[in-house]
Amino acid sequence: MSEHIVTSFDDDLREVGKLIREMGGLAGSMVNGATMALLSADIALAHRVVSDDAVMDASQRELDERAISLIARRQPMADDLRAVVGAIRMAGDLERIGDLAKNIAKRVEAIGHDAVPRDLSHSIEAMAGLVLGQVHGVVDVYGERDAEGVALLRDEDERIDVKYTSVFRELLTYMMEDPRNITACTHLLFCAKNLERIGDHVTNIAENAYYVLTGQQLPATRPKSDETAQPAA
Amino acid sequence: MSEHIVTSFDDDLREVGKLIREMGGLAGSMVNGATMALLSADIALAHRVVSDDAVMDASQRELDERAISLIARRQPMADDLRAVVGAIRMAGDLERIGDLAKNIAKRVEAIGHDAVPRDLSHSIEAMAGLVLGQVHGVVDVYGERDAEGVALLRDEDERIDVKYTSVFRELLTYMMEDPRNITACTHLLFCAKNLERIGDHVTNIAENAYYVLTGQQLPATRPKSDETAQPAA
Repeated sequence: MSEHIVTSFDDDLREVGKLIREMGGLAGSMVNGATMALLSADIALAHRVVSDDAVMDASQRELDERAISLIARRQPMADDLRAVVGAIRMAGDLERIGDLAKNIAKRVEAIGHDAVPRDLSHSIEAMAGLVLGQVHGVVDVYGERDAEGVALLRDEDERIDVKYTSVFRELLTYMMEDPRNITACTHLLFCAKNLERIGDHVTNIAENAYYVLTGQQLPATRPKSDETAQPAA
Repeated sequence: MSEHIVTSFDDDLREVGKLIREMGGLAGSMVNGATMALLSADIALAHRVVSDDAVMDASQRELDERAISLIARRQPMADDLRAVVGAIRMAGDLERIGDLAKNIAKRVEAIGHDAVPRDLSHSIEAMAGLVLGQVHGVVDVYGERDAEGVALLRDEDERIDVKYTSVFRELLTYMMEDPRNITACTHLLFCAKNLERIGDHVTNIAENAYYVLTGQQLPATRPKSDETAQPAA
């Protein structure tokens, strides 16, 4: 073997970090694309998001292989091992965010043009804005190795849950007002739920990032509430 | 250190395998409990499923720690490393199955007593039966290290998707017939979707198990169809 291909563990880890950032960028653009496609009934854009998911899946497989070969070749201990295993987990969450964005995009055709009333559209847009901010944010603060920023961001997820609960109730109201809204609103219900779940995956990434950065678990006291599954809803 | 605590890599791996089987058993009992609670409006049983989820989460954390310490201490190569990383991934999918069962259980109170019409109840029961068969099946065939069985099981997921599509349509019909059904049917819609997603996690586990057992990926040609997200639905 030539010396030119000899790399350090840190180089390898940087490569893995680069892949994670790329996956994070793609996840953000998929969430943004899926929401825009949904709100403007843009079927071409929806198709683009669906096809982006294959890129995401391939990136995850690449990351997994690199990470596993890195563990096998370098046999890292403690902190380093935590960083590599953390990267595998983050890639898993990013891949699921891509899946959820794809699922929203796939519903765009089913919902069609005329279905989203303006008020509802604003609510979903506001919710999607919060979610997108979280997706971009988690990749950024982790890139800056900012453990405190990661902890703050994790706690922001509650705002998404609150917004989801209000979108959920709005959707039920539209369905009750006019049965012709039911099919479209059902799809929107799943879209909103998917946005909420994207927020949950950001939470996972944040908790995982915190563990990688500090070696400690974030306290599990985060107020978790998808209230729509509660009796009161 | 005393010789009494010296264990072989195979012993360690067996311990990890034992934890996976326990998590698989718990996942099956949670899915079963959540479905029974849903169909018989059994709130006490629903609460038990919700509290089981904490046990599942703790098991996943334990498995992760064991697996990572195993990698660090034993520095396994190739096949052995694949088995350990595979166990980490399987534990992740089992933990999510637990989450989804918990989510179904949490909706039991919201739906209440009188809401599930008999026909619908039968459809959901049939769907849950398929899902439960898959959850039990994947843990069994993996335990027997039966790669062909794993591949066959993966392809069975299509039956769940077909069943889900029909439950979805039934639910829409009930909502359209009478707006008073909308709230309960919306919760049932999410329950059915959760069952379908449990099937997807079984698929992940099967693909992962196949890779661990054979070193090869299952061909990605599985006909994947949640048709409810398609325009025709």
